Amino acid sequence: MKKTKNVLILGGGGFIGRNLAEELLKDAAYSVSVFDLAPVPVNYGPARGRYEFVHGNFLVEADLEKAFRGRRFDAVVHMVSTSLPAGSAQSEMVYDIESNLVSTIRLLGLMRKYKVPRIVFVSSGGTVYGLPDLESGEKGIPETHATDPICSHGIIKLAIEKYIQMHGYLYGLKYLILRISNPYGEHHSSEVQGLFNVALRRALAKQPVTVFGDGGNVRDFIYVKDCVKAVKALMDRNVAGQVVNVGSGTGLSVNQALELVKEVAGSFKVKREPARKFDVRRAVLDISKLEALTGFRPTPVLAGLRNTYKWLKKGQKCRH
Amino acid sequence: MKKTKNVLILGGGGFIGRNLAEELLKDAAYSVSVFDLAPVPVNYGPARGRYEFVHGNFLVEADLEKAFRGRRFDAVVHMVSTSLPAGSAQSEMVYDIESNLVSTIRLLGLMRKYKVPRIVFVSSGGTVYGLPDLESGEKGIPETHATDPICSHGIIKLAIEKYIQMHGYLYGLKYLILRISNPYGEHHSSEVQGLFNVALRRALAKQPVTVFGDGGNVRDFIYVKDCVKAVKALMDRNVAGQVVNVGSGTGLSVNQALELVKEVAGSFKVKREPARKFDVRRAVLDISKLEALTGFRPTPVLAGLRNTYKWLKKGQKCRH
Repeated sequence: MKKTKNVLILGGGGFIGRNLAEELLKDAAYSVSVFDLAPVPVNYGPARGRYEFVHGNFLVEADLEKAFRGRRFDAVVHMVSTSLPAGSAQSEMVYDIESNLVSTIRLLGLMRKYKVPRIVFVSSGGTVYGLPDLESGEKGIPETHATDPICSHGIIKLAIEKYIQMHGYLYGLKYLILRISNPYGEHHSSEVQGLFNVALRRALAKQPVTVFGDGGNVRDFIYVKDCVKAVKALMDRNVAGQVVNVGSGTGLSVNQALELVKEVAGSFKVKREPARKFDVRRAVLDISKLEALTGFRPTPVLAGLRNTYKWLKKGQKCRH
Repeated sequence: MKKTKNVLILGGGGFIGRNLAEELLKDAAYSVSVFDLAPVPVNYGPARGRYEFVHGNFLVEADLEKAFRGRRFDAVVHMVSTSLPAGSAQSEMVYDIESNLVSTIRLLGLMRKYKVPRIVFVSSGGTVYGLPDLESGEKGIPETHATDPICSHGIIKLAIEKYIQMHGYLYGLKYLILRISNPYGEHHSSEVQGLFNVALRRALAKQPVTVFGDGGNVRDFIYVKDCVKAVKALMDRNVAGQVVNVGSGTGLSVNQALELVKEVAGSFKVKREPARKFDVRRAVLDISKLEALTGFRPTPVLAGLRNTYKWLKKGQKCRH
């Protein structure tokens, strides 16, 4: 009989985390522990025996150690982030460093102490590359592209990648670094990040949608259920020592994206704000590596949006 | 008449810093303020009116601000480092992050506040590249080489580079990032870093020299007076927006280096220790960019070593 894989998802109560936990638990080969600051109001139903929730703050080492003590994990999925691409004020940079980076160093120490052999780290496909080369325009940005972020969030994600790779080299830690583009879909709740979800929610509430600049910035939107399927496929195959882009591989401008939202949710007003300098013009990922490793095929965006809209409408009636 | 350039050298009391201060002060076009934790026992002679010393700790923001208050600098040269390539224990990594990285963020904030338009940052040619590609063997490592450090020191140097470049993009900060190889020469005092100086000093004191591994690791040794001449040449030309390797461009194995030390200082014993995993096998820089920008030509290594030995012998008799 195949051994169950015990996975600890740090930040497993968040947007991608909840989707990943659900996806892994559909497969009897996985047991999942979720570590999160917020209690996660979920019922994983028949998977109950393979699921547990550990409450704690990633920034507090004693909390984090609770998650490891008395358990034996095959892998940690690290998707905690305390910063957003927008925040590059002095105090935000310092907080970014002291929270995300220092806490991840502590995590790596705990993983060595508790002999966890594998880490999956959720990095940022939208920020680590910085301003894309013009040549990458058509094909998307490959993993080998230069990494010159223009926001603190991206620099810290990159530094964490480097520390993880260093632990791979020095101590044999198996790692998988995922540079994820812009996910949308079920369980999203942020009011400041995630154009598709925010716009769908505003449209539903008959509120205007804010657009920075001319709406011509191009992004790679990935349906979150595709995203976590891709992550699971990589984990199933024990892919290690790799940096992998996870996106749809297709670019949509903000204006194009809003047209699709109108198609799904009806008309809404747009509020225009000045462009922000830290927003790159075009960020579309080359996903040929992911395709080669897993046979990944993304869901058509209209289908993903309709599912998301259905979920949002249900949520309007009954929260969760 | 040409305006004097006012330069603040952070860590200007250290090995490279003292040499750079001397080099800049030879040219009446420069005024130099040195900020350092240790009082600097120097007499810059005729340049006295163009030199001042500010005592303080780079890690203490209030100290650092003292250096800026009431002064108007054209450039800051940042060469403070609190870590060594060897230190990658958990506590050392956290200290590296909290001291070097966070303090540099504060420095960048002070530079904006006091409107200093330019920074020269001393990065690490020996650690930011990590394990060199095999193809770079003959020609040396170019600035475009991948940056995957295998020690915390290198990761933090790289993260600082990224924050500086981000400030260049977002706020127009002019920057020059110098990836310096292994300097040796006058004013060196470390007991744990700098093979040539340590070996010359041990030979002089009739003590054994410690070698890690088989002595086949290859390094790019640059005479510190060449190094600071190169830095000044780049500063004279206001080179900005660039990452530049500063090295000799020539590789010497540790064993070859020790043969040269014998030639200069006579025989000594070698103490062999096991190889260290964070030491890369070969780290030689491609310096064609520096050559193209400045016409740089390195001093022959035997001449540099003889000067260093002379300085060391003088120091034996009278400290400084």
